[in-house]
Amino acid sequence: MSEGRRITVVAGGVGAAKFLRGLLDVYPNKLVTALVNVADDFCLHGLAISPDLDTVTYTLSGQVNPDTGWGRVEETWRVKDELERLGGQTWFNLGDLDLALHLYRTQRLNEGATLTQVTLEICNTLGIEARLLPASNQEIRTQLKVQGQGWIDFQDYFVAQQHSVAVQDLRFEGIGSAAPGPEVISSLQESDAIIIAPSNPFVSVRPVLEISGITDVLKQRKEKVVAISPIVGGAALKGPASRMLEELGFERNSVGIASLYKDVAGTLVIDEVDLELSQRVEAEGIRPLVTDTIMDTPIRAAALARAVLAEFSLNEEEQQ
Amino acid sequence: MSEGRRITVVAGGVGAAKFLRGLLDVYPNKLVTALVNVADDFCLHGLAISPDLDTVTYTLSGQVNPDTGWGRVEETWRVKDELERLGGQTWFNLGDLDLALHLYRTQRLNEGATLTQVTLEICNTLGIEARLLPASNQEIRTQLKVQGQGWIDFQDYFVAQQHSVAVQDLRFEGIGSAAPGPEVISSLQESDAIIIAPSNPFVSVRPVLEISGITDVLKQRKEKVVAISPIVGGAALKGPASRMLEELGFERNSVGIASLYKDVAGTLVIDEVDLELSQRVEAEGIRPLVTDTIMDTPIRAAALARAVLAEFSLNEEEQQ
Repeated sequence: MSEGRRITVVAGGVGAAKFLRGLLDVYPNKLVTALVNVADDFCLHGLAISPDLDTVTYTLSGQVNPDTGWGRVEETWRVKDELERLGGQTWFNLGDLDLALHLYRTQRLNEGATLTQVTLEICNTLGIEARLLPASNQEIRTQLKVQGQGWIDFQDYFVAQQHSVAVQDLRFEGIGSAAPGPEVISSLQESDAIIIAPSNPFVSVRPVLEISGITDVLKQRKEKVVAISPIVGGAALKGPASRMLEELGFERNSVGIASLYKDVAGTLVIDEVDLELSQRVEAEGIRPLVTDTIMDTPIRAAALARAVLAEFSLNEEEQQ
Repeated sequence: MSEGRRITVVAGGVGAAKFLRGLLDVYPNKLVTALVNVADDFCLHGLAISPDLDTVTYTLSGQVNPDTGWGRVEETWRVKDELERLGGQTWFNLGDLDLALHLYRTQRLNEGATLTQVTLEICNTLGIEARLLPASNQEIRTQLKVQGQGWIDFQDYFVAQQHSVAVQDLRFEGIGSAAPGPEVISSLQESDAIIIAPSNPFVSVRPVLEISGITDVLKQRKEKVVAISPIVGGAALKGPASRMLEELGFERNSVGIASLYKDVAGTLVIDEVDLELSQRVEAEGIRPLVTDTIMDTPIRAAALARAVLAEFSLNEEEQQ
């Protein structure tokens, strides 16, 4: 990688992608690595689908659907409409452009390439200069125990049921034997800053942190780790993070997030509207950093990135 | 199946599909079974692709591209264009509508359905009343030994290299352990007529006939079997059948076809332009039936079907 002070971001999907977009607007792209969650990955129609990697990829290459934060802009649904006519499964909403990426990845994996290699190829093709690393090349599958249904797969919960059911427990099938992907540990060890993106702490961040060796490095380097709370004023900006906090026995605010991250992060970024919580965050043993965390525009995302860089005195590295 | 005299057609791709279309225009559809070659099937991008089944399906449901005889009419290429941009493999020309069928089939196979079941589901959805049976539910893969390249896969030869290389030998991987699909043998045993469609004898018909038990039934019922020569005046109407005859040591005309089918068929339909060959066909031990075999319109395909039905005195079954 290039000379300079490196940053590693632990990333889930939409929230992480927006933060990364902001960070890459203000920091040398070649110095940034994203470790991306793969526990949402699944197989449908024989295709290897990696939702978090794809959301980050589409966002960083300027191809994401700005209305949803995931999927492709100018997407079409020719295949899906025909699949519906055939009586096939269409609950995951695979668009035509999106499908092309899944076809590419599946073929390369079937040829023996690793997910790390395929991700690198895609980034090269799409001109993404930041380094995207799958958290693992082994299969990890998030499952949720939900009221009245027992254990179900993540995509069933998240997409098919629109995360509308109460979560009682979580597990990550395969994580016990999954190794970190190539360069994942070294990236964490060699970075001058590690940022946990404002992603769902249970289903996006935890299945990265629980991979063998990753939490150990974060604990050792805790003072270099800043987590960004995905909760603003008691609500997640997107997805089920907020209600999962409550369902799984945590406070439904950034204090709950602090209690989850206190062992692995020295600092927790919380939103200005949660200023009143800063003392209680501090009482959890994690330093609060209060700033605007809402990323509804690229400018605000870049401002959040700058605030985090300032915490590490990394602003002088900012690109022109 | 319905009451009445049944017909079974041994089928490859385009030629068989056109003949079946003509037959179904003049005969009760529920009395017709097509045993379709599966040795062209392959996996690309993780998808289970069955080119011959699809060509027959698209033709019989009125969805085939009339310009090519395969693929879908009103096809679009949104996924393929994007896959090309990503550097993926696009040599097989997967259209958007076509892809939907592959997604459906692959998902159902992954769920544990057999190819026979999936084919039946698709026919039901598309309103095809004839019965399409995959020749086998086990994997059979045609490979060709071609000059200078050794053994290559069928689709590499046929699509990627546009059958432009000389074939030295053929093999069907897996055929030794492949069982006939459900109802394949009984369909042959219980039919009043068995028709070998004007398909490539080497790569479409042979990998059906070589499946355990099939040739035995045909030999036993030889007088009920009519083969239609795919060669007209020394040339195949489509594809490499003609040059393969020569490359593999047979006469490049309907006499060559007669020598291939003489043990399994009592009659060989040859084209009017090959009238002069009829004595030589007969000398091979197979009864020649001379008629117009060119199926460039549905009317001519129906006329060919009628000529074959007349051979079995089946014309009185014609539907109104």
